[in-house]
Amino acid sequence: MKLHNGLSPNGLRVTVFLAEKGLEIPVVPVDILGGEPRREPFLSLNPLGEVPVLELDDGSVLTESVAICRYIEGLFPDPPLFGMGAKGQAVVEMWNRRLEQRVHGPLSDVARHEFAFFKERGPQFADFARARRSDYRAALGWLDREMSDGRSFVAGDAFSVADITGMAMLLLAHFVPVVLPEELKAVKRWESAMKARPSWPKLPQ
Amino acid sequence: MKLHNGLSPNGLRVTVFLAEKGLEIPVVPVDILGGEPRREPFLSLNPLGEVPVLELDDGSVLTESVAICRYIEGLFPDPPLFGMGAKGQAVVEMWNRRLEQRVHGPLSDVARHEFAFFKERGPQFADFARARRSDYRAALGWLDREMSDGRSFVAGDAFSVADITGMAMLLLAHFVPVVLPEELKAVKRWESAMKARPSWPKLPQ
Repeated sequence: MKLHNGLSPNGLRVTVFLAEKGLEIPVVPVDILGGEPRREPFLSLNPLGEVPVLELDDGSVLTESVAICRYIEGLFPDPPLFGMGAKGQAVVEMWNRRLEQRVHGPLSDVARHEFAFFKERGPQFADFARARRSDYRAALGWLDREMSDGRSFVAGDAFSVADITGMAMLLLAHFVPVVLPEELKAVKRWESAMKARPSWPKLPQ
Repeated sequence: MKLHNGLSPNGLRVTVFLAEKGLEIPVVPVDILGGEPRREPFLSLNPLGEVPVLELDDGSVLTESVAICRYIEGLFPDPPLFGMGAKGQAVVEMWNRRLEQRVHGPLSDVARHEFAFFKERGPQFADFARARRSDYRAALGWLDREMSDGRSFVAGDAFSVADITGMAMLLLAHFVPVVLPEELKAVKRWESAMKARPSWPKLPQ
């Protein structure tokens, strides 16, 4: 198999997932800023025009970063990054979705409606972006209250795909840019721990 | 365990999932339109103020409809609704996310920004809602092209949680209301099949 990928929040999720599994697979670099995913031949690979794309040896493709991660988890279960047992897996699913929809989601809307890069995707609404900045701050406050129980990771005591979704949010925060407020002590402690992991990417300055 | 639930797109996902598994568990009805999830004592159960909530016998709770479904899948694997094998599970994950983010997502934004019911959640932007209506129509067109290969279900030849997410979208379409265009033959065929399933809820007229 080979991975078509570039530097983006969703691309990072697969890159970090592979690094945390200790896996290396061939990567075909995709020039996202140059618009490569929105042109042929990439569109034939993924008509949705997005990375990451995992191309399997039988020629079929998987898209959606979490689906690609779940495929890798199925082939290489250790260390488990989607939780263990019915309840453990459900808790990771719950936190992965919470991070994705409630924290990353608002910030992603900010980027979609503020970045010149996304202008070609359709109309941008500055007032909506401002409201989503406010939703993002509220979500960070909620997350900080939840994580103030002393847990080390988003879903509990073990690093999981929910932390990886959080790392994608941190990458997006780097790009927007927004700085996580110092008073969110639990979230800031988690942010430092995530950025100290060997799987955290080296970012262009 | 018991399920706190009410009639809503996310509530429907768990209701249909249980019905498709042939399971019955105690349900505590929640008056969503009456604002019950946003008041105590519900907020102590789920500070996010949303259904569905699965309360386990040990007192812990699971939220997020897909996390609840995944927990049930872990306890009662047959029939499998999250796919089988590494690739099968990844394909279901991919399609569940595509339906959720690309089809249900825009329609959900329309509801959030048009329904008087959601006014208290924060500002509503009519121009953004209009743009998301257009995104929704485009997504349905894309889904129709994808499903024109003759498959019976969203993720292939077997009914899965991706169809259930599609059924949640159909419920939301009923409420908005929007009618799926007749020219989307593959999507319309799938819609008829979903609404003919015994698990499809009886809706208040």
